[in-house]
Parts: sequence; C-alpha cells; structure tokens
Amino acid sequence: MIADKILLDHGSGGKMSHQLIAELVLPAFDNGLLAPMHDGAVLAVDGRIAFTTDSYVVDPVFFPGGNIGDLAVYGTVNDLAMCGAQPICLSAGLIIEEGFAMADLRRILASMAAAAARAGTIIATGDTKVVPKGAADKIFINTAGIGKIPAHVTIGPDRARPGDQVILSGTMADHGVTILTQRQGLVFDAPVQSDTAPLNGLVEKILALCPDVQVLRDPTRGGVGTALNEIATASGTGIRIYEQRLPVRPEVAGLCELLGLDPLYVANEGKLLTFVQKAHSDAVLAAMRQDPLGASAVVIGEVTAEHPGKVTMQTRIGGSRIVDMLTGDQLPRIC
Amino acid sequence: MIADKILLDHGSGGKMSHQLIAELVLPAFDNGLLAPMHDGAVLAVDGRIAFTTDSYVVDPVFFPGGNIGDLAVYGTVNDLAMCGAQPICLSAGLIIEEGFAMADLRRILASMAAAAARAGTIIATGDTKVVPKGAADKIFINTAGIGKIPAHVTIGPDRARPGDQVILSGTMADHGVTILTQRQGLVFDAPVQSDTAPLNGLVEKILALCPDVQVLRDPTRGGVGTALNEIATASGTGIRIYEQRLPVRPEVAGLCELLGLDPLYVANEGKLLTFVQKAHSDAVLAAMRQDPLGASAVVIGEVTAEHPGKVTMQTRIGGSRIVDMLTGDQLPRIC
Repeated sequence: MIADKILLDHGSGGKMSHQLIAELVLPAFDNGLLAPMHDGAVLAVDGRIAFTTDSYVVDPVFFPGGNIGDLAVYGTVNDLAMCGAQPICLSAGLIIEEGFAMADLRRILASMAAAAARAGTIIATGDTKVVPKGAADKIFINTAGIGKIPAHVTIGPDRARPGDQVILSGTMADHGVTILTQRQGLVFDAPVQSDTAPLNGLVEKILALCPDVQVLRDPTRGGVGTALNEIATASGTGIRIYEQRLPVRPEVAGLCELLGLDPLYVANEGKLLTFVQKAHSDAVLAAMRQDPLGASAVVIGEVTAEHPGKVTMQTRIGGSRIVDMLTGDQLPRIC
Repeated sequence: MIADKILLDHGSGGKMSHQLIAELVLPAFDNGLLAPMHDGAVLAVDGRIAFTTDSYVVDPVFFPGGNIGDLAVYGTVNDLAMCGAQPICLSAGLIIEEGFAMADLRRILASMAAAAARAGTIIATGDTKVVPKGAADKIFINTAGIGKIPAHVTIGPDRARPGDQVILSGTMADHGVTILTQRQGLVFDAPVQSDTAPLNGLVEKILALCPDVQVLRDPTRGGVGTALNEIATASGTGIRIYEQRLPVRPEVAGLCELLGLDPLYVANEGKLLTFVQKAHSDAVLAAMRQDPLGASAVVIGEVTAEHPGKVTMQTRIGGSRIVDMLTGDQLPRIC
C-alpha cells in the first residue's frame, strides 16, 4: 500500500521512489517510450525539431478550468506550437513538498496524461524529487518538449511585416483573473475559468491554410501587451491595435476593474496571436472560428512601418497611446 | 542597473524579466540556438535521439567540487550518456526564491555555461520563474536534454548477460558524503569533494572500443547498490560483487562510518557502471583508466545466472549477503 502523503523517502531513489513510480506514475502515463528504470527515452527523429521548457509554480494548484498538471502539459505543447511544431513527446520533472496529499498527486498525474492525450502527445520521460516540508510550496512541475516542424514552416517574432493583420484567437485575461480571484478567496455567482488548452490543433489549421504564416505567439505571462511588444522589438516594426476590438468577457473585465488590472497584461493559457498577410486574413480568421479554441478569433490590429519597435493603441474615445511592456509584477505564480 | 537580489518582478514576464534574461542569462549562455524572445530552440536532427530530464534541489547550493548549476548540467549530460548518447543541447528551467542574491545566480549561470562547454554542448532554451520568499528554498534547476545515439548502439538495463564483468569507473560516495558533511557543518582538514563531472567522453571511449556494450548506468540517488538492483531486476540476472574491490576513498569511508551511512547507497555524480563481456573487459578497463574520470576504474563483480533479480556481495570476511535496494531516505536534497 502506498502512503496517503508524500514522504521524503519517495524522493530517495530507493524502494519507495520505485513504488511511487510503479504505482502512480507509470500507470498514469502508460506508454512505450516511458521505459521504467532507464535514464531517458529513446526515439527516432528526422528533420527540424523545436525544443522548449517551462516550469510551473502556479498557486493555487487546482483552479477552475484546470490544475498545475494540465497547465504544465498545455504550456509546453503551446510553446512548441508557437514554433510551428507538433509535439512529439514531453518530459515531466516534479518537485514535491513532503506531506503533499497522494490523492492530489494522483489527480495531477491523471490530468497530465489526459492533457497529453488531448494534444496528441505523450510524457516520455520524467523525474521526481521530494523536498522537506517548507522547502517548496506544495508542487512545482517542469515540462520540456520536443516537436516536429513541418518542412517550409519558419516562425519567428522577427518576421512581422508592415501590412500584416494581427489576429487574437479569443478573449484576454481569463487565466490570470481566475488564478487571482481564487487566491484572494473572491467567490462569484458566474465564476471565471482558466482558458488552459492545447493550441497545436489550431496552429495546424492555420498553417495548412496559410503556410507562409511566420508569426505565432501565445500571450502568457505579461499578456497580449507584452507579447506584442516583443514582436515589435524583434521585427523592428510598429504594431497598432484597437481598444474596442480587444475581446474580454464582461465578467473578466469587471474583475480586472475591481482588482486594478489591465487585461492587456494579464496571462492567457489557451490563446494565440498570429500575424497574417491581409490577402489571407479573412480566410484564416474563418478557419480559426471553426475551431472551438478559435471561436472568438478577431483581428485586433495591424503591423505598420511607422513607430518601429512600438505598440500603439487607438482608444475607445479615439485617442492614441503607447502600449508598453508590462512593468512590475501584476501576478506572481500565475503559471 | 540590475538589482542585487532577485525580485518577484524578475518573474513577471515583463520588463524586469527581459532585463534579467538580457543582462544575465543571454551573456552567460551565449549561443546561436538560444534565440531571445522566442518560445523554443529550433534544430535539425536525424536519427535516434535520447531525451531526458532531471530537477536539482541540492542543499547547499554551493559545495566543494561544484554547485547546483554544474551539477544540473552534468546530471542530464550523464543521463544522456547512460543511453549511449552524446548531448546535442540542454534546456534550463530555473525556479528562484525572491531575495536570492544576484551574485550567486551569476555564479550558477557561469558554472552551467562552463559545464555545458566542458561536455561539448549548449543550453539552447530556458525559462525563469520567481516565487515569493518562503515558497521555495533558494533555487531549483531543471535541465532536460537531447542527445544523439550512434547507429548500432543499444543500451538498456535489461541487457545484462551472465558472464558480463561489472566495471565501476571510480570511487563511491564522494558526492553524497560531501553534501551531507556540508549540511551538517562538519569541517575537516582534508575536505571531501563532490565528483560531479560529465561522463559522455568516457562513454564515447568505451563505445568506440567496445560497441557491443549494452549496459551503462550512473549510480546517483540510491548509489551503486540501488543501481545494481535495478539492472538485476530489469535483466532477470544475478549480480555478484566483492566488498574488498569496492573503491572508497579512506576519508569518505571514515565519514560514512561517522555518519552511519553505507557507501553502497550514497549518491555519486561523476561515476558510471558498465557491463562488459569478459573477453573485452581488460581492454575496456585499460581505456577507461586513460581518462581522468576513469583513472580508478575497477571490476567490482560479475553477472551470474544464479539468484536472478538479486545482488549479492561477498564480504571481506568471506561471507555472502544480499545487497537490497535502498530502503529509507539516507539523504534528502542530495541532488
């Protein structure tokens, strides 16, 4: 019988580590690559790959719409997708605080496995460390991923060109506002929920329709405002967006006002920005809207030759202002 | 000017995150793959690869012989090497506690870069998270890695065969004993030091000389005793070792006695076990001894058809005992 809480011995590398892997991890992640007792997964690859990593430290661990497990899987799947890649496999590195409930770990592992399946990938290799009570807060998860990039696809933030239409795949700020309201113990009649989701299917549709798309970005930490600034800086172009086109759910907008947050800087976990030549943007938009994860896709602006390196926003009342990169930490441990 | 301590804002994804990446991380890890402001590294690969991950939570962060940074790089390089692979590139995911000294972070990043260079690889992609004071203990580092496996090389713990000679590349327990004596504040005239080192060069030599080597294992957490048990279990063979052949530095042996530790179960970070057919073992041993990291290599035992799944040890006084897998946590946060 496995204990009902994580003990230091579960991280020893000895018998209890093996029991934890054999009874919880292997059954959850069951797949041919996850060879027990070997130091890594072995696979055949041919062509260009993307390689990425992210650590997840979100607090709380469970939140409406997801938990740290599916967030960690989708986050890395999305980073691969933003390189134009379809995921081949992921790694999972767990750092668990002594005393963490085994039932919660089971739930998180099940979510990771389900999330990987939904994204069409597997968790091929992993590692578990246990630290004494107080040395970490509950659980942190690192995922790294390898993805295959189709021939002829080249994505980079430096590839924005004047005239490109800036498409956002859906509403802003859902994830960040969900985490913050949970953390502050705010409860509402119509609760908001994280948008955590795998974007590789949506990217596949976009690239199938329009193989010359060269800019993809998921606006996570720092939000849409920061992501657009990164692209403007990398490409040396200007980006102009329109405040009245920015999609925000009314309940999320209300909470942002209550909490003093600008939704432009609040994290998203299931949204993407893509830049498309004007000739193709209607078709891409229509294709994105066929996908549940792109149902609210909208053109929020365009790339300009003016104001290189800057993001400007035409406000609702007709003025224009600079949208800077996020300064100051709106939300620690948001992902 | 960058602050002298890590602030929560350094993990925001906004301006201060960018400053940290631009002023500390990019200069330390300078290479063509580490594209700033992109979600992942893009590279061309052809053939079989190994993919592995490990998180490092070692306490203390700095110790004689190394620190958490080079330990994290060598650890993942070694996991790749134990699949027979030479490293292509690594990822680095940092989780840093608010208030961590920027000078210490600089030292750690410099060690990671130097370690990667020594192993002939690069850190191609990364991620930095900051958690509030008290939510993590100083710094945790995850590294994942991709390595190329030469054609015809197939390594696995299930491939041990009766008659194979069991070679250990050097002395046992140096890393674990170093960490524990540091943590307990024990100070000695002749201090012990961690053996953290990259083993891919040694593996390359072994495989060049003897391409049919099929078992490689670095005895980290759980030590030589646990690693041999894993191989015995996976291969369904017995393994017999000889106590008097087990190499342990006298000062390490003394400390183990003082601390009540069995060196067979104490972690190593720069040693490997390899299993070689008897006809080749003298040649492999001679080649290993040419390498500074294998200078003390020795045959510690052999694989038997008897006692499948068990490790037995002939003791100094001539008796025989079962060497079980580590039970109980000798040393939390050893790596």
